[in-house]
Amino acid sequence: MPGNMIGIFFRVTTWGESHGPAVGAVVDGCPPGVDLDKSDIQQELDRRKPGARAFASPRKEEDRVEILSGTFEGKTTGTPIALLIHNRDSDSAAYDELRNVFRPGHGDFTYFKKYGIRDHRGGGRASGRETAARVAAGAVAKKIVSREGISVLAFTKEVGGVAAEKAPPGDMAENPLLCPDGKAAERMEKLLEEARKEGDTLGGIVEIVVKGCPPGLGEPVFDKIDADLAKALMGVGTVKGVEVGSGFEAARMTGSRHNDPLTPKGFATNNAGGVLGGITSGEDIVVRVACKPIPSIGKAQKTVDLSGKAVTISIKGRHDVCVIPRIIPVCEAMVSIVLADHLLRQRTNRGVFP
Amino acid sequence: MPGNMIGIFFRVTTWGESHGPAVGAVVDGCPPGVDLDKSDIQQELDRRKPGARAFASPRKEEDRVEILSGTFEGKTTGTPIALLIHNRDSDSAAYDELRNVFRPGHGDFTYFKKYGIRDHRGGGRASGRETAARVAAGAVAKKIVSREGISVLAFTKEVGGVAAEKAPPGDMAENPLLCPDGKAAERMEKLLEEARKEGDTLGGIVEIVVKGCPPGLGEPVFDKIDADLAKALMGVGTVKGVEVGSGFEAARMTGSRHNDPLTPKGFATNNAGGVLGGITSGEDIVVRVACKPIPSIGKAQKTVDLSGKAVTISIKGRHDVCVIPRIIPVCEAMVSIVLADHLLRQRTNRGVFP
Amino acid sequence: MPGNMIGIFFRVTTWGESHGPAVGAVVDGCPPGVDLDKSDIQQELDRRKPGARAFASPRKEEDRVEILSGTFEGKTTGTPIALLIHNRDSDSAAYDELRNVFRPGHGDFTYFKKYGIRDHRGGGRASGRETAARVAAGAVAKKIVSREGISVLAFTKEVGGVAAEKAPPGDMAENPLLCPDGKAAERMEKLLEEARKEGDTLGGIVEIVVKGCPPGLGEPVFDKIDADLAKALMGVGTVKGVEVGSGFEAARMTGSRHNDPLTPKGFATNNAGGVLGGITSGEDIVVRVACKPIPSIGKAQKTVDLSGKAVTISIKGRHDVCVIPRIIPVCEAMVSIVLADHLLRQRTNRGVFP
Amino acid sequence: MPGNMIGIFFRVTTWGESHGPAVGAVVDGCPPGVDLDKSDIQQELDRRKPGARAFASPRKEEDRVEILSGTFEGKTTGTPIALLIHNRDSDSAAYDELRNVFRPGHGDFTYFKKYGIRDHRGGGRASGRETAARVAAGAVAKKIVSREGISVLAFTKEVGGVAAEKAPPGDMAENPLLCPDGKAAERMEKLLEEARKEGDTLGGIVEIVVKGCPPGLGEPVFDKIDADLAKALMGVGTVKGVEVGSGFEAARMTGSRHNDPLTPKGFATNNAGGVLGGITSGEDIVVRVACKPIPSIGKAQKTVDLSGKAVTISIKGRHDVCVIPRIIPVCEAMVSIVLADHLLRQRTNRGVFP
Repeated sequence: MPGNMIGIFFRVTTWGESHGPAVGAVVDGCPPGVDLDKSDIQQELDRRKPGARAFASPRKEEDRVEILSGTFEGKTTGTPIALLIHNRDSDSAAYDELRNVFRPGHGDFTYFKKYGIRDHRGGGRASGRETAARVAAGAVAKKIVSREGISVLAFTKEVGGVAAEKAPPGDMAENPLLCPDGKAAERMEKLLEEARKEGDTLGGIVEIVVKGCPPGLGEPVFDKIDADLAKALMGVGTVKGVEVGSGFEAARMTGSRHNDPLTPKGFATNNAGGVLGGITSGEDIVVRVACKPIPSIGKAQKTVDLSGKAVTISIKGRHDVCVIPRIIPVCEAMVSIVLADHLLRQRTNRGVFP
Repeated sequence: MPGNMIGIFFRVTTWGESHGPAVGAVVDGCPPGVDLDKSDIQQELDRRKPGARAFASPRKEEDRVEILSGTFEGKTTGTPIALLIHNRDSDSAAYDELRNVFRPGHGDFTYFKKYGIRDHRGGGRASGRETAARVAAGAVAKKIVSREGISVLAFTKEVGGVAAEKAPPGDMAENPLLCPDGKAAERMEKLLEEARKEGDTLGGIVEIVVKGCPPGLGEPVFDKIDADLAKALMGVGTVKGVEVGSGFEAARMTGSRHNDPLTPKGFATNNAGGVLGGITSGEDIVVRVACKPIPSIGKAQKTVDLSGKAVTISIKGRHDVCVIPRIIPVCEAMVSIVLADHLLRQRTNRGVFP
Repeated sequence: MPGNMIGIFFRVTTWGESHGPAVGAVVDGCPPGVDLDKSDIQQELDRRKPGARAFASPRKEEDRVEILSGTFEGKTTGTPIALLIHNRDSDSAAYDELRNVFRPGHGDFTYFKKYGIRDHRGGGRASGRETAARVAAGAVAKKIVSREGISVLAFTKEVGGVAAEKAPPGDMAENPLLCPDGKAAERMEKLLEEARKEGDTLGGIVEIVVKGCPPGLGEPVFDKIDADLAKALMGVGTVKGVEVGSGFEAARMTGSRHNDPLTPKGFATNNAGGVLGGITSGEDIVVRVACKPIPSIGKAQKTVDLSGKAVTISIKGRHDVCVIPRIIPVCEAMVSIVLADHLLRQRTNRGVFP
Repeated sequence: MPGNMIGIFFRVTTWGESHGPAVGAVVDGCPPGVDLDKSDIQQELDRRKPGARAFASPRKEEDRVEILSGTFEGKTTGTPIALLIHNRDSDSAAYDELRNVFRPGHGDFTYFKKYGIRDHRGGGRASGRETAARVAAGAVAKKIVSREGISVLAFTKEVGGVAAEKAPPGDMAENPLLCPDGKAAERMEKLLEEARKEGDTLGGIVEIVVKGCPPGLGEPVFDKIDADLAKALMGVGTVKGVEVGSGFEAARMTGSRHNDPLTPKGFATNNAGGVLGGITSGEDIVVRVACKPIPSIGKAQKTVDLSGKAVTISIKGRHDVCVIPRIIPVCEAMVSIVLADHLLRQRTNRGVFP
């Protein structure tokens, strides 16, 4: 039954409900001697903070992280790192009318079917709030990953059918969508504004690019790096699809076009997205995730209550119009956690104690 | 480093190289009392057998499975089930000239970078041959799954850009591609024939549909059923993308359209693909995987050898033109393994020993 | 590297250092619907509290537990249960002089060798304080175990060479040592008083008896119930030996005497200690652990400092004279965690979904 | 339910029943580049072979191991190593009369209670025969361990109450009991001869000494090296107790006597048995296990059959009088597996990628 841990060597366990006292994570397996300060984690949390960007929920949360263990005088000690984020502004009363109703597109129905009991307030454990704990743990992973010269960058690739033509670095910092294509971003924002007015929401695509990753990460045959990335990303609530490199386009290509030729200077192309046989090749790892539109919409929806009776609901309260760009730091966190885990795994792989 | 096991409660470990003496699997965690005969496994193996269908490698293998442990008088005993398949027709000599060359699109380069040593014969552990062990183990999983009234059916959705318009049951049995749309299948076969003549290969898309799955399977937040399916399927060598339900199309939909309304008679639509909040809803689970074109092509390709020198290779020998439909039983096996694992996990979840 | 988790289905992760802000545990895998209140946990914590009994450290700690997640309206929800205990009265200054010295009998030397860095204050992670988190998590396990009609009772079997002749229920409640043999307890207390005066410490033996355990728990061949109990108990800092049933005496018995005859009314004897072939038999599970004397002694000791130079130390501060009886609730916690894990595992074992 | 795997980084899965076609093991996680030949494994198997020494079962088995995967041109490749040992001389008919009877002291009763089905022939999975697979896997572990300069040596410490006074190296090679004290060995042999005549069996104690182990192995707080050793050894069918260093004697010592003083030249004594805080200190690791007398005795015993009716049995067939010394290579195998696992784990622990 337990399913709240990810990683084998770099293990992250998250806990906490949207409207409980706190959410948090325990990071077990972080090597000793890593500089780690609360601010390393806080800056990542600030990126996913509600209200940090336009089109985001106005819920105001400080999201102040506390490090409760695992560091001493500013360095990790090799013991588990407990991270805690108190829930401050949780307005549970707004959810009272949803106590006995299953919201479409949410986990309400399935949690009830699985557990026979659920904390309905704000989605409980199924809430996007849980990702704050992932981002906090991911910040620790990022420290490890960046020490190896690896960067993990996610950005908005598509919103509401409008795709960015450019790749980073573009003018990402200048638009609230973290989209490298400023023109596309303008059109996306316009669509989002329209959706908001209609009480509706939009989906999108996030691309994650990992630069500087050494070859050799990934453990065939089941713990391939792309398999572990797919699991980590598909496990984010909003994600309905994951693809690596050429992804679904690969299905329409010939072998002669898809194969990336090797040359004395390296790979000539990167359809593989940095992964061959489940092991990193040293090229950029390129992954895209499809995010569904946020299911909490203002428009009237048909559903049923606990007794199975048909009801119509219109979801009020504070909700984002699009999960992008708040999901971007979550994607970076998940990818960083997988990479940290595999960097440690790969250590055990270099011949016998050379 | 170890990565050859999948599942927590229903654990499958595979082993074996393409040109070693055998491949096999150990299934640990199969409940006792399940009727299990060699023929249950053999019939699944026969479906993926080389030469079983057109467009497949003419390599002749008997692929006879042996059950070496875990059953007694025709029933499982709860102890580990060891499955063994000898490699009979492995022509290693054909690979001699590839000993020092990295084939594009294969794991040759990355295995060498990771391990510093590799069994180059037929791809060694990275060979598609390893999937025979998965299919054998998957046959055991299928027994468990089908006892629960669950069926797992995979079929060809797309080849070379030609998509099936219909869903099963169609005329799947009547075409070698296991495609429910006979007309589309004819066009696919024509494309495959052309590719074969050009010494090239084609990719495609497989869809897997799970019917009869009870609600409640899946363990948030990291071991969600869709996350585990994504891992299991992305871990198949040929797969570059995985999507559930609406998948990448979800990115272009509004919330009001994407949300599946609940009615007193059940869900009105199934954009979710049978999964909400990472837990099965009782609706059909629908998953699609994008398969890249097989990298072993007859056409000349540029690559490098171990010393980094540029060479041109043209791959001879026995290779499929398209991984479809031989990958279909592999997809069914992986999905069945994940479902068997989660069926057992869900057992621990029903209140306390009611 | 990570080693702070125990259990597969009922998973406990502990974190925290003796002189950090807090210690805690995350319990992942607790079934939903279990009544769980803070007081259930608090009463177990109160049993191991410093100063709760004679011969214990006078360190005053409230050890107030907080439940931060996983329950809703007094019941578990199946999501992870985060437990937090703040460290209140931690006098770090007392440890300043030990910053560069390895205390004999403690993990100071080995932690330094392993991690190259250590939180020296009070032993950091190696402190007995970490067991507070185990006891808190064990209290959740006890709830599960007791719902099955199973009781887990530990008591003092031996201190300083004085052995209890009787087994519980005796006059345990009436002596501070939780020893069922009042006469023996008196002699033990006398020895403890003498040791205290000499600035020395004493070891002892704890016996744990599990009553009401159904047959069938334990997973051969490596996760046998006795193997998991041995691991869980040997992992308590003070423990140097674990034995089941006849234990070391079995080495001196003949087969005809050791074998427990089965009769129509059950087993005639219980040399097996309730475990045969690694699986519970339904008889009482009987386990004994040997606890070494507490290494923090007032007497002068020879040791070395970080530079390898010989120094003499005499450990001041607040320390117990004997780890017994404070270790008793820890032993009960560890046994309960193992049993809860195996109760859940055994659920998956009952034929296929009967 | 699954319990047939041990290790996290160096993972061993065993399978097979006493009277099935074969027993075997899969070793996943062995680093690449290790010289490994069938003879490395065969020589360990030969040490535990039935009939290899006096007082052992006359069952004649060749126990020829086959390596089916994971090596290439005499070296490991980092992929899983499958080891197979066919069962040749299994006389199942001798067990027919035991089909419906629970043998005292064996797992017959508990396996039946757990699984509801059992392979009664020779104990099935619960047979000592399963340890052949452990020894085979352990031989791979030994290769890794010995490359690090670590030796693992087990010997007979006590049989039937007669204890060896000396420690190795003594005249171990010269007596069939692998006991370093020749005089004691003579008395042990005499006792064994008497027991054989009476149709009875004797227990004993094995001591395992690990020399050359570096400091730093072991992962607090649950995967301590002594905890993992205790689990691995208690999981051997015959073992009823495990102790480290001073073991149960520690319970009778004072802290001032038990603490091992550190000196500029190292530890002055080794009551800790090479482990402090669950981490190796660099001193010899010393572990002792108590082995119960073999339960298969010729003497008449009372028991019940499947229907619960009282019956009397006298076990014929080929059985050892004492599990020692055949258990010695098994103990060495289990300790080597744990050490190999922790050597690999410790690799991930040395600061961040220095």
